[in-house]
Amino acid sequence: MDQLLQNDERLDRLISHDLSIIQSPSVFSFSLDAILLADFAQVPKHHKGKVVDLCAGNGVIGLILSQKTKSPVIGIELQERLANMAERSIRMNNLQDQVSVIKGAIGDVSNWIPKDTVDVVTCNPPYFAATEKSTRNPNQHLAIARHELHTNLEEVMEVTSGLLKMNGKAYFVHRPDRLLEILETMKAHRLAPKKLRFVYPKIGKEANTILIEGIKDGKDTGFRVLPPLIVYNEENEYLPEVSAMLFGKESD
Amino acid sequence: MDQLLQNDERLDRLISHDLSIIQSPSVFSFSLDAILLADFAQVPKHHKGKVVDLCAGNGVIGLILSQKTKSPVIGIELQERLANMAERSIRMNNLQDQVSVIKGAIGDVSNWIPKDTVDVVTCNPPYFAATEKSTRNPNQHLAIARHELHTNLEEVMEVTSGLLKMNGKAYFVHRPDRLLEILETMKAHRLAPKKLRFVYPKIGKEANTILIEGIKDGKDTGFRVLPPLIVYNEENEYLPEVSAMLFGKESD
Repeated sequence: MDQLLQNDERLDRLISHDLSIIQSPSVFSFSLDAILLADFAQVPKHHKGKVVDLCAGNGVIGLILSQKTKSPVIGIELQERLANMAERSIRMNNLQDQVSVIKGAIGDVSNWIPKDTVDVVTCNPPYFAATEKSTRNPNQHLAIARHELHTNLEEVMEVTSGLLKMNGKAYFVHRPDRLLEILETMKAHRLAPKKLRFVYPKIGKEANTILIEGIKDGKDTGFRVLPPLIVYNEENEYLPEVSAMLFGKESD
Repeated sequence: MDQLLQNDERLDRLISHDLSIIQSPSVFSFSLDAILLADFAQVPKHHKGKVVDLCAGNGVIGLILSQKTKSPVIGIELQERLANMAERSIRMNNLQDQVSVIKGAIGDVSNWIPKDTVDVVTCNPPYFAATEKSTRNPNQHLAIARHELHTNLEEVMEVTSGLLKMNGKAYFVHRPDRLLEILETMKAHRLAPKKLRFVYPKIGKEANTILIEGIKDGKDTGFRVLPPLIVYNEENEYLPEVSAMLFGKESD
């Protein structure tokens, strides 16, 4: 296996899903948010659909989704180095018949995937506006993943909506401080927000992550706020729901 | 005291705040939501401000707020019978120098309170659109309190914004299924949503109530989702935060 790894890459096991994923601290490592999004997204179980993961990074979301659906899963990733990591992870898990990754900008996605043909789109986009310089990482790989340098909410929603069939579902993970902007941008692009789930690091703490489902051309009614997802107990141990996402259920 | 009570009215004690409140099952009894809103609202402690509670019902929110501020608190209530109950509760608690209630429609509020003069507005409005007939109560008093028969979100936000000074604060309690509409209507009336708190009946349940703070002409930035407020434990006992709102803290 070792020849598959380059430079400072390492191979992480996602025990809950029996997957191996190539990571690199200097290029990209997936966060808990990616796992939460992959868990939150509802995909058709059958093989006749199409699932697209935008801003795919090292491909972790697509890899997890492949365990929930028999439909093809296509990742779109701008950064050559990350797309290459994702590709090697896909092969390492023998998922090349179901999962693929395209190296390119999400704005060019219609070159590869026809409009109005996708059942589910997921996206863990850069969280910070390009103007928020305070937290900008000097490492360009990480800066692109975290800051809206090459894409932004407006484009993410436009591309998502363009890809989806009518009544297709979109799933996003993001930060609460951008909730209002997210809701408005979704609506402007025919994505009706349907479910919202707040992730709280601990029971007494403010939410630091949001998970949101939208339906293309969905009705305005039936909006729900799902049960709180609380990550840690007071001893900083993962609570059972998150632990199951990472390590599988104890009974498994 | 008994001559103060009419028909099926009873006197409830709100132990946490040492208040007596006239209730009537056939006319109006306050809900936990009113207590949550009164707790959520931040009012100036001093006596130089002005606080207005729209859709005041039997006045419970204004009565609780009077314990958090020295400023005058004015309730507006459309229903004569409820305004009368509120007035008697105010006298019963000897708060007539600080708390008052005006019988009238919120749309007429500028007849009594000048525009742009209020520091804090609270409102626990009717939750259901007038078109939602399924849950309409045949009792007219209760129907008016629960359904948007005589007011609606649009008017509540317009009136609130009209009353508030620049940077004045608005606090609302409502249902999650109307969150998107609430956020849009606030924004349309110069109320920038700033804090959102979700109330979950139990840890594994969907939110059934939202608390929201808006600031008149506030900036778009700094939006926060506060820690989850969970009402009951698995044994259906109030958790400490809610218990303290109702019965006071154990150490008190």
